[in-house]
Amino acid sequence: MTNKFSFGAPVFTGAVVEKFSLCKSEFPVGKIESEWPFTWNYNLEKTDIVFGLGESVRGMNKRGFKYVSWCLDCPNQSENTPSMYGAHNFLLVFGKNPFGIFFDTASRIEFDIGWTDQDVMTVKTEDTGVEVYVIFPSDNAKNVLTDITRQFRALIGQSYIPPRWAFGYQQSRWGYKTEADVREVVRKYRELNIPLDSVVLDIDYMTDYMDFTVDKEKFSDLKGLSAELKKDGMHLIPIIDAGVKVKEGYDVYEEGVKNGYFATKEDGTPYAAGVWPGRSHFTDFFNPQAREWFGSKYKILTDQGIEGFWNDMNEPAMFYSDDSLKEAFDKLESYKGKNLDIQTFFEFTPISGSTFNQLEDYKRFYHRVPGSSNPDEKIRHDKIHNLYGAWMTRAAGEGLEKISPDKRMLIYSRASAIGAHRYGGIWTGDNASTWSHLLQEIKMLPGVNMCGFLYSGADIGGFGDSTSRDLLMRWLALGDFTPLMRNHSAWNTRLQECYSFKNPEEFKSIIDLRYALLPYIYSEFVKAAVNGDSYIRPLAFDYPNDRRAVCTEDELMVGSDILLAPVYTQNAEGRYVYLPEDMTMVTWSDSRAEQKPMSAGDHFVEIPLETVVFFVKKGRAVPLFKSALSSEQIDMNSAYLVGDAKSCELYTDDGYSRKINLNEGMREIK
Amino acid sequence: MTNKFSFGAPVFTGAVVEKFSLCKSEFPVGKIESEWPFTWNYNLEKTDIVFGLGESVRGMNKRGFKYVSWCLDCPNQSENTPSMYGAHNFLLVFGKNPFGIFFDTASRIEFDIGWTDQDVMTVKTEDTGVEVYVIFPSDNAKNVLTDITRQFRALIGQSYIPPRWAFGYQQSRWGYKTEADVREVVRKYRELNIPLDSVVLDIDYMTDYMDFTVDKEKFSDLKGLSAELKKDGMHLIPIIDAGVKVKEGYDVYEEGVKNGYFATKEDGTPYAAGVWPGRSHFTDFFNPQAREWFGSKYKILTDQGIEGFWNDMNEPAMFYSDDSLKEAFDKLESYKGKNLDIQTFFEFTPISGSTFNQLEDYKRFYHRVPGSSNPDEKIRHDKIHNLYGAWMTRAAGEGLEKISPDKRMLIYSRASAIGAHRYGGIWTGDNASTWSHLLQEIKMLPGVNMCGFLYSGADIGGFGDSTSRDLLMRWLALGDFTPLMRNHSAWNTRLQECYSFKNPEEFKSIIDLRYALLPYIYSEFVKAAVNGDSYIRPLAFDYPNDRRAVCTEDELMVGSDILLAPVYTQNAEGRYVYLPEDMTMVTWSDSRAEQKPMSAGDHFVEIPLETVVFFVKKGRAVPLFKSALSSEQIDMNSAYLVGDAKSCELYTDDGYSRKINLNEGMREIK
Repeated sequence: MTNKFSFGAPVFTGAVVEKFSLCKSEFPVGKIESEWPFTWNYNLEKTDIVFGLGESVRGMNKRGFKYVSWCLDCPNQSENTPSMYGAHNFLLVFGKNPFGIFFDTASRIEFDIGWTDQDVMTVKTEDTGVEVYVIFPSDNAKNVLTDITRQFRALIGQSYIPPRWAFGYQQSRWGYKTEADVREVVRKYRELNIPLDSVVLDIDYMTDYMDFTVDKEKFSDLKGLSAELKKDGMHLIPIIDAGVKVKEGYDVYEEGVKNGYFATKEDGTPYAAGVWPGRSHFTDFFNPQAREWFGSKYKILTDQGIEGFWNDMNEPAMFYSDDSLKEAFDKLESYKGKNLDIQTFFEFTPISGSTFNQLEDYKRFYHRVPGSSNPDEKIRHDKIHNLYGAWMTRAAGEGLEKISPDKRMLIYSRASAIGAHRYGGIWTGDNASTWSHLLQEIKMLPGVNMCGFLYSGADIGGFGDSTSRDLLMRWLALGDFTPLMRNHSAWNTRLQECYSFKNPEEFKSIIDLRYALLPYIYSEFVKAAVNGDSYIRPLAFDYPNDRRAVCTEDELMVGSDILLAPVYTQNAEGRYVYLPEDMTMVTWSDSRAEQKPMSAGDHFVEIPLETVVFFVKKGRAVPLFKSALSSEQIDMNSAYLVGDAKSCELYTDDGYSRKINLNEGMREIK
Repeated sequence: MTNKFSFGAPVFTGAVVEKFSLCKSEFPVGKIESEWPFTWNYNLEKTDIVFGLGESVRGMNKRGFKYVSWCLDCPNQSENTPSMYGAHNFLLVFGKNPFGIFFDTASRIEFDIGWTDQDVMTVKTEDTGVEVYVIFPSDNAKNVLTDITRQFRALIGQSYIPPRWAFGYQQSRWGYKTEADVREVVRKYRELNIPLDSVVLDIDYMTDYMDFTVDKEKFSDLKGLSAELKKDGMHLIPIIDAGVKVKEGYDVYEEGVKNGYFATKEDGTPYAAGVWPGRSHFTDFFNPQAREWFGSKYKILTDQGIEGFWNDMNEPAMFYSDDSLKEAFDKLESYKGKNLDIQTFFEFTPISGSTFNQLEDYKRFYHRVPGSSNPDEKIRHDKIHNLYGAWMTRAAGEGLEKISPDKRMLIYSRASAIGAHRYGGIWTGDNASTWSHLLQEIKMLPGVNMCGFLYSGADIGGFGDSTSRDLLMRWLALGDFTPLMRNHSAWNTRLQECYSFKNPEEFKSIIDLRYALLPYIYSEFVKAAVNGDSYIRPLAFDYPNDRRAVCTEDELMVGSDILLAPVYTQNAEGRYVYLPEDMTMVTWSDSRAEQKPMSAGDHFVEIPLETVVFFVKKGRAVPLFKSALSSEQIDMNSAYLVGDAKSCELYTDDGYSRKINLNEGMREIK
């Protein structure tokens, strides 16, 4: 049962697809301390667990920190980073009186979940309005967490389903500059028989980082390259950035200016800020014509055979604006020649870094009001900041649907808000090559899934800093199970392709498992999307009455049948695993599976570096196929089962179609 | 058996106290790839473990990362931080052929421990000479790790032993600005009956951050305050910084300049760089007269009743130099008015932060050659960088020994190198309020202990960022067992004194355990120092033949009898504990202990937030005393034993004396 409330003057966000009238009765949980600005308090019982918040740091249980939804480019994130790339304002309070609560708002909102006071949760906005949906379990709910999640997902609409090939392994690096670089990646993977479905293109493929251009010097024939790779079951996935370079003669820039498609300053002229191409304008995705226009531009690349994209820098990230840069220089000037003591020096040092993603800059430009039919009504960016990336994804999603009405295309984004989950997936943004970010992904994915972003994953091996071989291997072992499986790294780091390390056959084995599982993963993903379930979720969803399971933060339920306990500690030879019931342990090594029964309870399981271990629930089976070099080359008749059941049902289709009918596509494997 | 080798032209470091002639035979382990610059390779077996490296990030097993010994102010350390505040170049390779290896060098040295190649360890210097000591186990060694460690510690001399009160709880904050602030801290602790031995004074007590001054406006009567606190068993611990403010009329500055006690530029004039007081000079601790002079200055404060100090900023940290600041401004100037694109912007942003701790600055000044009798012989700072803080500690240690020849004084330092362990302790530098830094401490302390720094601990609750209540409680539970138990935080963070949170009686209980254990901790500490053992060590030392124990990275052996398994995960209700043998589990809650026998093997142990758990080894006992408000008020006849033995021996003395004779001080408790 869902109750809707409204506080202040909420802006249309597009997150919700079900219509609800406002609830007239009292707010049913906690206490509204203030309606405007909005403040809600809720007293937490000692054993209450707060799930949710999607892309955010710390535990599956969000208690003990102060989070702020404010889409932010935050590559140096740590457990003390309050804001990440996405804004996912859904919480699931699990305790004596479980409920879900969704704060549907376009701007900044703060979640103090037992930080100021361990036993109090406080949710606050500054000056934005908010629609609040409180979801209680259905009367006859067998499982309250699943039930609440399904109700929430019905509220926000079905999750995006990418084409099947998007579940293949993707190799990326900020540093593939030419056709030759791409060919080398493909050649080396193929030489070593390591499966590969996609090569991802970062900003270097463009001319001067201009969206929807291809540098002809470096990629003389993208269409030819694309066709050549496709023959071997491979795809290219180019990047599209939010900022459009200010440059005379550049058609996208000129069309945007001519038609008023860019966000504007108060005086109505286009707003400029510096990103990769230098000064850039930002498409006003809240203007339906602008959105359609930007979405239609993807055709420039689909015409060259491209079927997948990633949208980046769409928080939007801003390195500087004309104003913030001038202010920085003026301040620096004033310090010149001074003897900088403690006070003045610490004013000085942050200045040149201070132009990044400034709130002041976000207050300097305006958009069409989302959902408004009045083209002259404007709203300041900061009031709808958290929607910007989401609506860029919407532009791409709607655009690609028009360009290709029958066939699904791949799209994933950095910035996001609930609502965008219907149009694309996300990766969890720039991270670093650290074991703590590997663990962070384990704890983050269940929340991301709850919020509808089923197609998701972190940059495997870590984006910033240099990985070590063992970190990459352990991360790939987790990546075997995440819908988006992308190895990505930054330009100034150690090469991170599997062939850059010794004994690449050990990498091959790990990636082979992905392909052995791929039809199952695809099937479970589609089922979760259609049913409003989480493809990845905390153990609490499956074992809500087992307190040990409920508090387990380093194991995951994957699909309907798998329990995963990834290794996330350097030099570990194994790890503890808690099994809430008897299960089958599957050990994958040297591209082969072995299985053995395991009893419920605590185990220390040895998991050598080159090995991947997962567990199949009691009474279930998971099909493993013969691995192949690409997803489309998997022999669908090669399956054998692991687990203690005799058969399983798998959803299969052409891997592309936009129409999903599970019943039609179900196939039994024995 | 210790073999000594010499490569290049090593500078005297003062680390080693035993005389060895150079070994004429071939280097006995691995391969010297190059003598100058020095490069040594060693092939690691898959199961080899590399312990050591003292204050450094990552695991107890150092494999899988590239570390650089280069004393550095690194408050934002993560697992990818190669250099920390100390330079501790001792490794203990544990495998089929165990050995210890100490690289005695004054400057930068790099340890690639299975990072570039998982199975190869490479140790390199750039242009510094190095004396290398290779230590093999004695023929009849019962325990090779203990044996090698004892040989190493005999080589470098006995560890510093602080006065007994230094094992009491210390409350610190960058932000106690006045006598009134200190009195408030004391009053609130005493009101709540939470034990407290010391209040630590950060830079605010000085006049304009000038060493050996006391701001009379804020501390009108330090001597009186000190005497007043001492009556109640409490001490003040003021900070001393490395930099001496350049200021006419300031006696320390003027004496230093007059006598040539400061490090100089190439032209012989004192070198200046900016730290807290603005432009400052740096005492040349390698000049014996300068060292003695600086050491004697502590008397200004001991005359006011001070008996403990912390030396800070002695890497030395430098915010900027005259040169680096000018360069930064010149570069900034050149970017003015430009359209900063990707290249130029990323040159621009780091500039104003680029003046911190620049290598170029460390090449701009000179010292007396350490150990040289020739006052005119100079050496450039970068060649002996890693000794600077160590020799500042030496200055303080030698100075305080002269000032107070019979009584031990407390001294701990931020920067350090092996050798300084004879003169003082260390805290592990500026950290942050994160669970990962709590875990980092668990993994770091065994290495720090191996290298001789027995008196050590991290800033409990975390220095930078704001703590949460639960983090502070879990960290205090670990701090109960670290010789230095200091709660410290930065000025712009949430208040972190125990009384700043709700239910302070739960904090009292945790700190009461420290005082219940204090006589035991003191006894075990002194024994470890005298015997050349590690007070805190990996389980491998006690259970070398148990692979599970050897690979356990989140449990510690403390003293002779305790196994510790701290909780380091937010919202955890317990944790896994591996016990290599049957033990007694002691559960401390509500200021009382309960015990129960536990069998060897794996356990999931419930450990509620307000509870501290530790384990006593089979056949051993640990005495718990009645807690008291300060260390000197502990009733030494109030002990009862936990564990399965009937008695234990405890070392007791006056808590101050410099002469240590264990046999004289031993006392049996039944």
